[in-house]
Amino acid sequence: MTSATRDAIRSVVEEFVREELSQENAHIASAVWSMLDAGGKGLRPQITMLSALACDSEAVEDPLLASYMELIHLATLIHDDVVDAANIRRGRTSLNSAQGNRFSVLAGDYLFAWVFKKITQSYDSPVPTILAAMLSEICNGEVKQLRATGNLSLGQDQYFEIIGKKTAQLFAACAESGAIVALQRKTKTTGQALRDDPNVRALRDYGFAFGLAFQVRDDVLDVVANETALGKPAASDLRERKVTLPLILALEQGDEAFCDLVRQLFTAARDEGNAGAGSEATNGLASQRLQAVVTHLRSAAAVERCREVIRRYTEQARLALSALPRSEATVALAALTNTLSEFSF
Amino acid sequence: MTSATRDAIRSVVEEFVREELSQENAHIASAVWSMLDAGGKGLRPQITMLSALACDSEAVEDPLLASYMELIHLATLIHDDVVDAANIRRGRTSLNSAQGNRFSVLAGDYLFAWVFKKITQSYDSPVPTILAAMLSEICNGEVKQLRATGNLSLGQDQYFEIIGKKTAQLFAACAESGAIVALQRKTKTTGQALRDDPNVRALRDYGFAFGLAFQVRDDVLDVVANETALGKPAASDLRERKVTLPLILALEQGDEAFCDLVRQLFTAARDEGNAGAGSEATNGLASQRLQAVVTHLRSAAAVERCREVIRRYTEQARLALSALPRSEATVALAALTNTLSEFSF
Repeated sequence: MTSATRDAIRSVVEEFVREELSQENAHIASAVWSMLDAGGKGLRPQITMLSALACDSEAVEDPLLASYMELIHLATLIHDDVVDAANIRRGRTSLNSAQGNRFSVLAGDYLFAWVFKKITQSYDSPVPTILAAMLSEICNGEVKQLRATGNLSLGQDQYFEIIGKKTAQLFAACAESGAIVALQRKTKTTGQALRDDPNVRALRDYGFAFGLAFQVRDDVLDVVANETALGKPAASDLRERKVTLPLILALEQGDEAFCDLVRQLFTAARDEGNAGAGSEATNGLASQRLQAVVTHLRSAAAVERCREVIRRYTEQARLALSALPRSEATVALAALTNTLSEFSF
Repeated sequence: MTSATRDAIRSVVEEFVREELSQENAHIASAVWSMLDAGGKGLRPQITMLSALACDSEAVEDPLLASYMELIHLATLIHDDVVDAANIRRGRTSLNSAQGNRFSVLAGDYLFAWVFKKITQSYDSPVPTILAAMLSEICNGEVKQLRATGNLSLGQDQYFEIIGKKTAQLFAACAESGAIVALQRKTKTTGQALRDDPNVRALRDYGFAFGLAFQVRDDVLDVVANETALGKPAASDLRERKVTLPLILALEQGDEAFCDLVRQLFTAARDEGNAGAGSEATNGLASQRLQAVVTHLRSAAAVERCREVIRRYTEQARLALSALPRSEATVALAALTNTLSEFSF
């Protein structure tokens, strides 16, 4: 997919928000508008539209479903920032920081509800169910992640279960629903059976593997990239005591001094979280510890092993595509996976 | 409807939550379970089931839709308590107080998504759209209410717009969707046209008028009832600078001393909200002012005028029912409106 096409999708999504959403609730529309304006790669809309084209090369490029998928994603980001008490998103002040948690909770709810209203009006079974089920899986994953905060015994299995739910399900649903809508229009059939179509299953598998690789990359970037590249403070996960793959793998190496350091960092971060801002001295110590953990993670084999995991899932995503007839769309979907091995740091 | 039937509906809803929800996310299920266990009159499930019976006396009493409506209501309560920073709900510690805002945001999201998954699986058009549209209206109303915080120029029109969206839409959707599902089963038809069926429209009108009366009563109770009767601190709305009908009507009387007092109360409450807990002296002053405003509101003509408004909407709800063939169900729906004029204080 050329960058011109990517821009075209983006401008369609933006125009749609401006026209449709603004009429119903101007305050929420302007909040959403400002998030869209701050950027984002638009991977989810692209996967949605390309999956439709992969199932029917004659499929008219339909920006609606793709826009709805992006809006669901934005709604989850709005609530994520409340849950994580994040101040910065995409290099800008986050909505909860700008407008308060109260507004953010309601704005996210409104966006979910509004998108579901539109989707149930426009799409037949099973698309609305796929999207609702996906959203419940995302929340399920977020709850599991929240409960795993600070848990240094979190295993790889639990980590992959969490990121499968909180991240990969959305990519999978983009691919699956894009494909199903195209097949519904092409074959004039609706219903649950389309979920078993081999092309739909292959695209869903592609989306899921893509999503896993995407989240592992995101978790590695949090450790290795700087604030400018991330559009949010570096090492946010460690500050929030979120246990992700780089840390899990580094802890598995069994370096006792490092494990102690992480335990101290997390204990201090938890106490600080409970007690509010610490003194200058404790803040200085916390910052030293954080830097030491980051330095260890960067130099450890953990980052290289994460990149290996990313390569494995990227390969799995490409392999899923090979079940489909080769087309411009499948080539573009394969090319999208190249972004997963880009580490601009 | 006898109290035995009411208990039957309640136990079906509870059993459903225990069995269905627990399998998917035990933590969220136990949170929901504890809210259900704390009580609530179950008006929404009753209106859903009775509306079905009013359209088809042979309708099998279907607890599923009624349960989903109660769960949507619970999900909105969970997020409301985050938005209002409420500590007490139905006489118990609220979920946000017990488990934190982060968990509450996710638990509410999960519940919305899970209910929509179930509804899109079980009900044909237009029921999923009615419920999604209703939820977006609720959020829209909540956003408007949040933006109206502390606005002493809020007019009656704006107040009724807010409560129409945040409260009455849910009662209207219970009645409408209950009726539509019964007619779909009876006539084997689906689709948008059922929304124009005269009986469906009459029941929707009943639900909407019922909801308006319900919310005005709730707002009056906040002023006149005590903590034990409310299951939460008295005068919560005034503490949160929420402008409701009793206050709007009292301010309209134009007693300058009273208007000044309310302005002082709200300014102090806003500053306190910004600065955290105040000193003992300022807290004492705030408490005196609050008590003076409450005393004025109780003695003013405002409460009597609110009861007049409640009577008017109750009458409107009953009038809507008169368009339907008289049946046990319509008699029970009419009887439900009696609860609206009960003021146990």
